[in-house]
Amino acid sequence: MKKITGTFVQPLCGGDIPAMDWRYEEYDAEFALMKKIGIDTIILLRQMLGPFAAYNSKYLKKLHPNMWDVSFDYLDMLLKLCEKYEMKFYVPTYNPGHDWLLDSYDPQQEFEFLVPLIDELMEKCGSSPAFAGWYFAHEISRKVAWRVVDLFRELGPYCKKVSNNKPIMMSPGIQGPKGLIADLYPPAERKARSVTFEQHREEWDYMLSRLQGAVDIIAFQDGHPDYEDLETFQRINVELCAKYGFECWSNIESFDRDIRNPKFQVINWEKMRFKMRSAENAGCTKFITYEFIPFMSPNGCYPAAKYLLKRYLEENGINNITL
Amino acid sequence: MKKITGTFVQPLCGGDIPAMDWRYEEYDAEFALMKKIGIDTIILLRQMLGPFAAYNSKYLKKLHPNMWDVSFDYLDMLLKLCEKYEMKFYVPTYNPGHDWLLDSYDPQQEFEFLVPLIDELMEKCGSSPAFAGWYFAHEISRKVAWRVVDLFRELGPYCKKVSNNKPIMMSPGIQGPKGLIADLYPPAERKARSVTFEQHREEWDYMLSRLQGAVDIIAFQDGHPDYEDLETFQRINVELCAKYGFECWSNIESFDRDIRNPKFQVINWEKMRFKMRSAENAGCTKFITYEFIPFMSPNGCYPAAKYLLKRYLEENGINNITL
Amino acid sequence: MKKITGTFVQPLCGGDIPAMDWRYEEYDAEFALMKKIGIDTIILLRQMLGPFAAYNSKYLKKLHPNMWDVSFDYLDMLLKLCEKYEMKFYVPTYNPGHDWLLDSYDPQQEFEFLVPLIDELMEKCGSSPAFAGWYFAHEISRKVAWRVVDLFRELGPYCKKVSNNKPIMMSPGIQGPKGLIADLYPPAERKARSVTFEQHREEWDYMLSRLQGAVDIIAFQDGHPDYEDLETFQRINVELCAKYGFECWSNIESFDRDIRNPKFQVINWEKMRFKMRSAENAGCTKFITYEFIPFMSPNGCYPAAKYLLKRYLEENGINNITL
Repeated sequence: MKKITGTFVQPLCGGDIPAMDWRYEEYDAEFALMKKIGIDTIILLRQMLGPFAAYNSKYLKKLHPNMWDVSFDYLDMLLKLCEKYEMKFYVPTYNPGHDWLLDSYDPQQEFEFLVPLIDELMEKCGSSPAFAGWYFAHEISRKVAWRVVDLFRELGPYCKKVSNNKPIMMSPGIQGPKGLIADLYPPAERKARSVTFEQHREEWDYMLSRLQGAVDIIAFQDGHPDYEDLETFQRINVELCAKYGFECWSNIESFDRDIRNPKFQVINWEKMRFKMRSAENAGCTKFITYEFIPFMSPNGCYPAAKYLLKRYLEENGINNITL
Repeated sequence: MKKITGTFVQPLCGGDIPAMDWRYEEYDAEFALMKKIGIDTIILLRQMLGPFAAYNSKYLKKLHPNMWDVSFDYLDMLLKLCEKYEMKFYVPTYNPGHDWLLDSYDPQQEFEFLVPLIDELMEKCGSSPAFAGWYFAHEISRKVAWRVVDLFRELGPYCKKVSNNKPIMMSPGIQGPKGLIADLYPPAERKARSVTFEQHREEWDYMLSRLQGAVDIIAFQDGHPDYEDLETFQRINVELCAKYGFECWSNIESFDRDIRNPKFQVINWEKMRFKMRSAENAGCTKFITYEFIPFMSPNGCYPAAKYLLKRYLEENGINNITL
Repeated sequence: MKKITGTFVQPLCGGDIPAMDWRYEEYDAEFALMKKIGIDTIILLRQMLGPFAAYNSKYLKKLHPNMWDVSFDYLDMLLKLCEKYEMKFYVPTYNPGHDWLLDSYDPQQEFEFLVPLIDELMEKCGSSPAFAGWYFAHEISRKVAWRVVDLFRELGPYCKKVSNNKPIMMSPGIQGPKGLIADLYPPAERKARSVTFEQHREEWDYMLSRLQGAVDIIAFQDGHPDYEDLETFQRINVELCAKYGFECWSNIESFDRDIRNPKFQVINWEKMRFKMRSAENAGCTKFITYEFIPFMSPNGCYPAAKYLLKRYLEENGINNITL
């Protein structure tokens, strides 16, 4: 089976996932482990959450005067660790959380808002040999988010221009019954509220046609659909990506979306294995996960994560790790 | 105080309790520990949950074409470990989750549906010296579930016939304010919605009278009633079981039902001790728990579980374990 | 930065925070660690919760016939450990949970109710060299709780009289959007429902004026306001405390109030650091936390707590601990 070779990281602490309170020492050990098991790609999830930034961005501080002076530069740390371990680092563009379903969302305005941040990030990361590409952080899933597509059509070419054509990745959702829909509707209604195969195909055919040249890699999240529907969605994704010339990765979520209280538990290995086989059958070309830390880490805040990793290593015949 | 000598296990991963992602190596170590502290009875909670089975059941696969091919035979593992450690293994009958409150629930049809599964299980487990009995997995609590009683009246004799009269266990609830009722009603209404002592007595008098010969052991769950009411309910249970010739065990839950966010935390030892004393006072003859793994395990996903076990061992004068 | 030198403890197990199931052996090791990092003050949160007491109080048992006989005297253990490690122990007064917003709440009656308990506590703790003061356990936050102020005006002088004038501490809330208000209202309404700076100033000016001589130390909880408002509230607190002659401590909460499912996770260090700096800027004279165990303990039920402690020690230049 294809191995997981990339992971998101979010040292900021989460909106929903508990903080690990790690710094260089702990991340260094974790990167050594990730390297050993074949991770070669690190994607920072975001550079700001609430008043809380991954580095003391002068530009974000200007926009958000309440932004805290953080006591540690996580972005710099990640760059250095990716250099040390020869991994590829994807730099996120900030999602300011504006509501893209409203007419008041102006893609042009959001583009102009993001340009100075892109410039600042280029200054910070541009010369690092680890800087491998961009991650567009707006997590869309349906055509109703067409304003974000308009934004990406401006943002993509700009990022490529300033970065000597670095590739751009995005990780959209498939609007199945387990995400936002589970938060909004009772169990019996969720399936009916979910996107159908045909809607998904039609909407992403349109969106990918418009994203050509602006984005290079689509890594759909795999956690929202029902298991029995997943492979069909993934086949549609692979097919559409092929049609328009995108790479089609799979974002194999390593947390469980079925358990709702408490949320964000380590996924059962059988479920993760099922999703990996499904993505492999469908033809996805690279597997990344959301996210190795803490859900697959023997050093993190979930004791069960060690066993998930153990099962993963067994299945993939990786024997050089003692857990 | 009487010791806990049995436990449910659910290697499948839970609907509500996080997955441990353990396999033979981890379960083997855990069985060695359980043996050492006096556990002699293992009850598998279920053989299927969602698309997810404890073994590749040909029969369940026929019924649920979406059932996954699991990569590991948990049922076989449990049988082998029970043989190795000379423990008694209770085999669950599958609860397909049909709504037994509806007239459309046909006990005869459910019986016919379960017969080939019983046969398959006999083939798989029948010759194992560890196979000690059946666990009827439908968790009922009130007379409104009379259709399940009708089912058990068919299912019990069939299981006994094919298994050379192996005993049958069930583990019903006492409909106190802390289970389903807490999910459905605000705190102020929960007590009024709960079963009264007299209702419980009347309804279980009727149900046990009809279950004679079909079931042998009743292990009521102890987590739903208020603490102050528990012993009274347990005395009623013991009395009714004596009247109709059942063994009356107690299912001492080792997780906390008072903490609602996050749910399913390790119980405080004082609460568990209270429930054990209450069951002892009432005259229950064997204690089982839901469930040793992870709530009493020093190796599981809850760090506090080690200390619950430590307190339990101290109270019971078990000194041969280093934690 | 000023260090955290005090912490609440609640060995009882929580209403909301999972039980640790620790006893003398585990607490002894933990006290040794706390001593090493500069903790000199221990405040027991409460002596009873539900039917569950920190010691077999004859008086509380008379009031609550359903109170359990606990198998271990946590109050005695804490006294002994504070003696051993030369720490100051604050003894809680019981909060019976009567609704102080109702006219039926009679401060005089509650006072008379508490007097025999104070006497019992004096008998139990009075001769211990560790007994350093009282903790008034009613957690109020707004003037609407004026009946509790009336109670404290009776209770304070009584406690001082019988205890040779030991100081009295209370730890009220600042009614920001993250506590009770978050439980009651959707996110969009929470800020508008929160106390304003001026309301807080006006109400606490009144309450502190009436609490002079009855209470000595006010340690406001720091978790409910928005981060950007915290320092302003704390400056008001310090100013009012100076006006009326109270010591103004800060209760630096070490759990995260932003993550709502699951609740009660270890706080991110950046957030905790922000709150400590804010309290320092405002002029609070002592930092306590709710609570070292489990949220900052390397031995507790949250694996991330070890790293929170590590960051805290680094920031404060404490190098004599191996974690």
